[in-house]
Amino acid sequence: MESTLTPDTICAISTPPGKGGIAVARISGPDAIRICSRIWRGKPLEQADTHTAHLGTVCDSDHQPLDQAVATVFLAPHSFTGEDVVELSVHGSKFVQRQLIKSLIDNGARLASPGEFTRRAFTSGKIDLTQAEAIADIIAAESRAAHRIASRQMRGNFSSRIRQLRDDLINLASLLELELDFSEEDVEFASRDQLLTTAKNISAELQRLSQSFAAATVIKEGIPVAIIGATNAGKSSLLNALTDDDRAIVSDTHGTTRDIIEDTITIGDYRFRLMDTAGLRHTDDTIENLGIERSLQAAQKASIILLVIDATHPVIPQIPATDATIIIAINKTDLNSHPDLPTLSPNIPADSPHINISARTGEGIATLREIIQQKANRTDIAETDILVTNARHYQAITRAKESADRAIDSIQQQLSGDLIALDIRDTINHLSEIIGDISSQTILSTIFSRFCIGK
Amino acid sequence: MESTLTPDTICAISTPPGKGGIAVARISGPDAIRICSRIWRGKPLEQADTHTAHLGTVCDSDHQPLDQAVATVFLAPHSFTGEDVVELSVHGSKFVQRQLIKSLIDNGARLASPGEFTRRAFTSGKIDLTQAEAIADIIAAESRAAHRIASRQMRGNFSSRIRQLRDDLINLASLLELELDFSEEDVEFASRDQLLTTAKNISAELQRLSQSFAAATVIKEGIPVAIIGATNAGKSSLLNALTDDDRAIVSDTHGTTRDIIEDTITIGDYRFRLMDTAGLRHTDDTIENLGIERSLQAAQKASIILLVIDATHPVIPQIPATDATIIIAINKTDLNSHPDLPTLSPNIPADSPHINISARTGEGIATLREIIQQKANRTDIAETDILVTNARHYQAITRAKESADRAIDSIQQQLSGDLIALDIRDTINHLSEIIGDISSQTILSTIFSRFCIGK
Repeated sequence: MESTLTPDTICAISTPPGKGGIAVARISGPDAIRICSRIWRGKPLEQADTHTAHLGTVCDSDHQPLDQAVATVFLAPHSFTGEDVVELSVHGSKFVQRQLIKSLIDNGARLASPGEFTRRAFTSGKIDLTQAEAIADIIAAESRAAHRIASRQMRGNFSSRIRQLRDDLINLASLLELELDFSEEDVEFASRDQLLTTAKNISAELQRLSQSFAAATVIKEGIPVAIIGATNAGKSSLLNALTDDDRAIVSDTHGTTRDIIEDTITIGDYRFRLMDTAGLRHTDDTIENLGIERSLQAAQKASIILLVIDATHPVIPQIPATDATIIIAINKTDLNSHPDLPTLSPNIPADSPHINISARTGEGIATLREIIQQKANRTDIAETDILVTNARHYQAITRAKESADRAIDSIQQQLSGDLIALDIRDTINHLSEIIGDISSQTILSTIFSRFCIGK
Repeated sequence: MESTLTPDTICAISTPPGKGGIAVARISGPDAIRICSRIWRGKPLEQADTHTAHLGTVCDSDHQPLDQAVATVFLAPHSFTGEDVVELSVHGSKFVQRQLIKSLIDNGARLASPGEFTRRAFTSGKIDLTQAEAIADIIAAESRAAHRIASRQMRGNFSSRIRQLRDDLINLASLLELELDFSEEDVEFASRDQLLTTAKNISAELQRLSQSFAAATVIKEGIPVAIIGATNAGKSSLLNALTDDDRAIVSDTHGTTRDIIEDTITIGDYRFRLMDTAGLRHTDDTIENLGIERSLQAAQKASIILLVIDATHPVIPQIPATDATIIIAINKTDLNSHPDLPTLSPNIPADSPHINISARTGEGIATLREIIQQKANRTDIAETDILVTNARHYQAITRAKESADRAIDSIQQQLSGDLIALDIRDTINHLSEIIGDISSQTILSTIFSRFCIGK
C-alpha cells in the first residue's frame, strides 16, 4: 500500500512481454531522473526539459554499456502518473529487458506491482477510479464494441454521469438539511413533489444503468452463441470452420463432444463466444446425458442459437423455449443439396433464417458469419448510451438504487426531512465509491457543515 | 526493394506482439509527420521540434477517437532511420494496435516489411551492414555472452577491424598500381618482402577471424552439452532437473528416449544446449540402435559431456574419443550414496570431475550447474576479441582469405605486379561485401584511376 509519505520510485517493462524491435521501461517517482541518470551515458537527464527525447546508452548493474536507448523525460506533474517519469526505449531482446530492470532496481528503483503506474495516476488526481478501471478494459478489449465502451469510460463519460447524479442528490440533501436548521420555523425549502420527481428520475436512471451491465458484459466477454443440433450433424466441424481452427475434436463417431467447447471469434465489431455443445439425441449414457443437459442450458443462456441440421439425415431436435435469435444452418449440403426438412419444432420461430452450408468445404460459412453479424447489430447499443461495464460499479449502483428507493418511500410516507436526507446521503456515498472520490466524505461534511452551521 | 527515388513512408508496431501496458507504432519516411497529423488530435505535429513528445489522441480510419497517445517526433536526419520518424505510444491492446496500423495505412503509410526500418538506417548511412545485422542479433540474444558479442558488433568494432584490413590492402594495391604506371622504368614502389609480410599478416588475421566463427556460433546458439549414459541412468530426469521442466518424457522402461531432445538453459553468462540422448546399451532394436548412434554423434559434437551413471547399477558405458570436457554425474545417490564405480573407460580422462547427484530430489543439481558454468568460462573469449558471428561474414572472410593466399602465392612466385594486384582487389571486394559499402566499387575505381592516370 502506498503511504501518504513521499512515495518510492517504481519501474517496469510497459510493453508486451517477449521479443520485439523495441521495448519500453517506464520509471516513475521522485527519484526517476536520478536513478536513470546513474545508468545513463549521454546528455545529462537532469538537464532535460519535460517531453524531450534523448539518445544515449543504458548500462547494466556492473556499469557496463547494455544497449543504445532513447530516454524520454516527462516532468511532474505533466506525466501519466503525475510524478517525474522517464521512459527508456531499448532493443526488444529479453536479455536487455531483464538486465535493464535489474540495473534500475540495483540503482534504487522498485519493481512496480500490477497497475501501480495507473494507481499513481489516480492517487495524484490525474484520473478518477472509473478511468483507471477503464484503462485495464481498453488493454483487454478484443473487439470494436468492447473498445468503444472502455474508451468512453476512460474519457470520463461514465464518471461525469455519476458525478452529475451525485450533484443532483447533494442539492436535494442540502435543501433538506437547510430545512432541519430552520425546523422550528416549519419551512419547506424542498417541495415534496419536486423532491419525489427528482428522486424517481434518479432511481430510474440508476435502474437503467444497472440493467446496462448485462449488455456491457456481453460486449466485453463476447456475445454467447450456442451451436445446437442432433449428434453427428457437424456442430464441431462448424465451430472449426467458423474459427478456422482445430480446437474441437472432430470424429465420425456419434457423441464425440461431451463437454461444452468454447471459442471466441470476432465478426465485424463484435466478439462472439461460440459454444459447441453435445449432440441432442436419446441415449442411456449417463455422461452423455449430462452433456445434453448442459447443451440445453447453453441454449438458454445464448443470445444466438446456431441450429445445425444434417442435410443427409435431416432431424430437427427439440429445443427449449428461448429468447435467443435462432439461425438454422443446414450442413453437409455438399452431400445433399436439396434436403427435405421436417416440420420445425414449436420453439423455433417460422421466420428464423435458413442457410445451406458445408462445414467441410467451407461453402456458406462467409454468409453465415454475415447473418451472425446482422443479428448482433440488432442488439446494438446507441453510441451515446452510458453503460456499466464493471462488476464493482454494478454493485455500487444497485446499492445506490436501493437507497434511492428507500428515499422515495420515505418521501411518500411523508417522513421527516432528516430521515429522507439519511437515505439520500447513503445514495451519495454509494455513487462516490464508484468514482473513488476518496475525499468525498470530507467534501460532503464540508458541504453539510456549511449549510448547517452550529448543528 | 527500395528504389533510389523518394522512398515511401512505412509503419509498424515495433514493440513485441501481444497485450501490454503500452505499444509503440513507428512511422518513418518523408510523409511520416503528414500521415500522423491526419490521425492526430492535439498539438499540431508539423510544428513539433525534433525529439519532443506530445500528448494527444489518435483516430481510427473513420476519424473516430481511438486512444490517448504520446507522439514522439524525430526529424531527419536525427532519427534511427535518418528519415522523419514519429513514434506513437498507445495502450497495448491488440485491438488498438490493429486499428492504429489500419488507420496509418488508410492515411498513406505502407506496412513495413521485416527489418525495413533498420534497412533504411543502413541506406541513409546511419549504420553499416554489420551493425544492421548486429541489431537482429541483439534482439535475439538470450545470454550475456551472446549479447556482448552482438553489442560489440553493433558498436562497430567488427566493421572497423574489417575496414582497417581493407585499407591496408588498398595501400598495397595502390603501390602496385603505381608500379604498373611506371612499368617501363622498372621501378619497384612496393618492396616484395614488405608486401609478403603484410599479405601474410592479413591472411593470418583472416584465418583467426574465420576460426572465431565456430566459437561465436556456440555462444549465439548455446554451448552443446550431451547427456550420455547407460539406459535408465536417469538422463531425461537430469535434463528435467536442470531445466526445471517436463520437456523429456520420463518413464521407468528402459530405452524411452530414442530421439535427441534438446533444451536450452542459461547458467551464468552462457546459454547451453542440453541434448538428452538415447541410453547406451546393447540392443537388437533397429530404431533404438539408430538412437544410440545419434547419441555417440552428439557426444562428438558436444563441448561438454555429462556422463550420467546410475549409483544403484553403476555401469560406465564406452564413449567415443572426444575433445569435450567430461563431467561425471553419479545419479540416484539418494538410493545408494556410496556406489562402487567400475574402472573408467579409456576415453574418459582420469581427472574428470565427479559429482553425486539425485535428479529426483534435486540434490547436487546446483553444484552441477556451477561446474558446467566453470567449464564454459574456461572456453571464454577475451573481452577485446573480434568475432565473426554471422554466416554471411564467415563466407566472405573465407573467400577473402583464399584471395589473400593466392596473392601470397603470386608474390612468392614473383609474378608481375598487375597479377598480384588482381588477387588483392579480389580480397578487397570480399571485405567490402561484409560492411556493405555498396559504393566501394566506385570508391575503388576512383582510387585506382587517380593513381593510374591515362592507363
